[in-house]
Amino acid sequence: MKRYEAIAELIAADIRSGQLPPGTRLPSIRKVMAQHRVSPATAFQAYYRLEERGLVRARERSGYYVAGLGAASQPEPAHVAQPMLSSTVDVSELVFSVLGAVKDRDILPLGSAFPSPRLFPLPRLARSLTATARFIDPQDTVASLPPGNPALRQQIALRYLGQGLSVPSEQIIITNGALEALNLCLAAVAKPGDLVAIESPGFYAASQALERLGMRALEIPVHPKEGLDLETLAAALETHPVKACWFMTSFQNPMGVSMPEARKRELVALLARHEIPLIEDDVYGELYFGQHPPLPAKAFDKQGLVMHCSSFSKTLAPGYRIGWVAPGRYAREIERLKLMTTLSASVPAQVAIADYLHKGGYDKHLRKLRHALEGQLLQLGEALVQHFPADIRVSRPSGGYFLWVEFPAGFDTLRLHALAAEAGIGIAPGPIFSASHQYRHCLRLNYGSPWSPAFAEGMAKLGQLAKQLL
Amino acid sequence: MKRYEAIAELIAADIRSGQLPPGTRLPSIRKVMAQHRVSPATAFQAYYRLEERGLVRARERSGYYVAGLGAASQPEPAHVAQPMLSSTVDVSELVFSVLGAVKDRDILPLGSAFPSPRLFPLPRLARSLTATARFIDPQDTVASLPPGNPALRQQIALRYLGQGLSVPSEQIIITNGALEALNLCLAAVAKPGDLVAIESPGFYAASQALERLGMRALEIPVHPKEGLDLETLAAALETHPVKACWFMTSFQNPMGVSMPEARKRELVALLARHEIPLIEDDVYGELYFGQHPPLPAKAFDKQGLVMHCSSFSKTLAPGYRIGWVAPGRYAREIERLKLMTTLSASVPAQVAIADYLHKGGYDKHLRKLRHALEGQLLQLGEALVQHFPADIRVSRPSGGYFLWVEFPAGFDTLRLHALAAEAGIGIAPGPIFSASHQYRHCLRLNYGSPWSPAFAEGMAKLGQLAKQLL
Repeated sequence: MKRYEAIAELIAADIRSGQLPPGTRLPSIRKVMAQHRVSPATAFQAYYRLEERGLVRARERSGYYVAGLGAASQPEPAHVAQPMLSSTVDVSELVFSVLGAVKDRDILPLGSAFPSPRLFPLPRLARSLTATARFIDPQDTVASLPPGNPALRQQIALRYLGQGLSVPSEQIIITNGALEALNLCLAAVAKPGDLVAIESPGFYAASQALERLGMRALEIPVHPKEGLDLETLAAALETHPVKACWFMTSFQNPMGVSMPEARKRELVALLARHEIPLIEDDVYGELYFGQHPPLPAKAFDKQGLVMHCSSFSKTLAPGYRIGWVAPGRYAREIERLKLMTTLSASVPAQVAIADYLHKGGYDKHLRKLRHALEGQLLQLGEALVQHFPADIRVSRPSGGYFLWVEFPAGFDTLRLHALAAEAGIGIAPGPIFSASHQYRHCLRLNYGSPWSPAFAEGMAKLGQLAKQLL
Repeated sequence: MKRYEAIAELIAADIRSGQLPPGTRLPSIRKVMAQHRVSPATAFQAYYRLEERGLVRARERSGYYVAGLGAASQPEPAHVAQPMLSSTVDVSELVFSVLGAVKDRDILPLGSAFPSPRLFPLPRLARSLTATARFIDPQDTVASLPPGNPALRQQIALRYLGQGLSVPSEQIIITNGALEALNLCLAAVAKPGDLVAIESPGFYAASQALERLGMRALEIPVHPKEGLDLETLAAALETHPVKACWFMTSFQNPMGVSMPEARKRELVALLARHEIPLIEDDVYGELYFGQHPPLPAKAFDKQGLVMHCSSFSKTLAPGYRIGWVAPGRYAREIERLKLMTTLSASVPAQVAIADYLHKGGYDKHLRKLRHALEGQLLQLGEALVQHFPADIRVSRPSGGYFLWVEFPAGFDTLRLHALAAEAGIGIAPGPIFSASHQYRHCLRLNYGSPWSPAFAEGMAKLGQLAKQLL
């Protein structure tokens, strides 16, 4: 890392931690020069870099200021520590209408579950596809049957190793995206009628899977700062026959919050005491804004109870549909379920991603992607301060591309969703993130697209609509 | 079609129908010249073509003879018209051991479920992959979400049209191979505990799916000449609460038999009277040996009760994992299940196959493939006559790449399977094709690989082992 980049990174960390809150004036160039013993050019480059990443703004004649959410006016969302038992789960109708909007090019994708595909190195991936397609040995088709293409599994094992986890390639099963991995895990460890702990608010695919498989949901609240509410979970496990847990431990969808490492360790210990398997959804784990990747709960798993699911869909190759699971003690069952339901993941996609990873450049792309997302978060945050009612609460994601907005009680985001749709703006209303239809006063915004005048206009319009509804 | 090809096709049809049984001497060249009013060169070319396709053999100084199964010595399999009710289904262990052998390059793939990938135009497909990968619009990722890539669905609709079926592209949903399509159909129309009619012997994926979803199987026998035993099905529907049927109507796996069109029409009418949905597995439909494709049951469906499932895995692109379903009235439910379980099929694979189909050449490839398979069937049949016990019965497939061999009662193909595996030969023993573990005296052979000395030796060895076990 170059000197100016290192300085920019130090300042970025202070911005992230809140030590330099939004609106603060940065130290003068002179101070930076003295503090870090660098030339004026280097100090300027550090600030240019921060400006380029969207973290600071230059104001004419008065220096650089921290961009951002305006933490003072917008507190974090509230927390209610109470589990919710829902006997039947039925959120699909709403989810499908929100998902449907994504296909409409004329809808501003603030409600989308995906980052903009423009952030991905599609041409370089295409080169890998091209380079490998011609040489696919007919036998590769058979060799890529579950558990999956050996070269790809090796590359994934290497990435685990880089994070400090030892997950040998033989313990990795390739799937059609993380979604299939998660669904296979659930089918492997729970039966119709079983009780499964999920997050609230949480990823709707979990409630949908329970609905589809006739299982029951126990919703554990997610704390806006600490992630999953461990105390509520611990109490619930004493009184409820929970068969499995399905949690997103880093950059949780929809709140964007991560469990601190110590809490992840506690979670794993708690579940080990009860011998309850954890389906760990970690698809956003690589999208951290800091300097170091957060460890997944899997890192603390000694018993093989954690099934770690991830994919390349949110970080590299959205349409390739390549994900994986490191399923611990459930490997055999999951490999068989995969064979029985969809046989294998697409071979050209597996081979191309293996080639791309082998050739290198993934880490460089990820760094660029993380910087882009962090800058976009600040842009969206500023638009919130500028256009939205003053009494909203907003989550503080440290990774991923989702922001959670809480309006005062009684506000109806389903009505806002309908009005916004008419104005060509997609949003994800709160109730789709709850098996028991809570969070009607909340919504999720997606900052996974490069900022543009269309987003600025859309946020202004959305804020105006929200004020009308207040 | 050229004159000599037309003459060859006429003779091939007579061989197929049994009018020219195996071992028969073909008419002399002089007779062919007179009958068809052609030159000696054309008559010779017709016979060369038949020889090239493996349908006839030249014997020195005595002319051309029909190759083939030796129908006289090997009657067709026996038929027992009785439904079998099995409350629990459990065939998986056995299936996985047979499937596992496929990944071993040193095992002769007579037990494989796949045709040899060497029969497919992989280089031409790779060119389509290469040509399209560079131009995948980021938006394509979203546009290819279920129901799937619009250009691909249009190409599939065109192929239906070519077969005389009107299935608009809006009624087609792209899946991860036909296996996912079949599983989604089943989940859409039946619940845990429900009774589902499947074939006996039948494709093990059906019993596995019932096992996985906690459903019960009603096994309807398959007649070696007529396919599914309609009379037994009709009687069973009067007394059993069947919720859905899952049948392979053309070139059935494992017998290779097809239902005549009139029987398919009857089947659809029968199910319409009972309002029972049919999951029609038609993955081998394009692999017919005659001049015209067999119509699927879907062609006679007026009520939208037939869910027609197929794929490109057996005909073009084995590893791409692209299949589809034309689900009639169940479209909405299946599209949603797809979104909830695996989201979407791999986009580069969808786009590449659409491009390949658009550029043309698929029909030419299919003709070549059909000729290759028919020739390989005769090779395998001759090896059976030469090396196997004389009292076996053998099915007469008119398409696909599976042959069903029935030994005398009491013969144990599970033991043969174990001995063959030791000798490096894979076979598919009968019990994996039955939820109630019948057919222990039967086995399925795969003639989907180009004939080679290894296959000749393997069949000789297999016959020797079988004789030892008799």
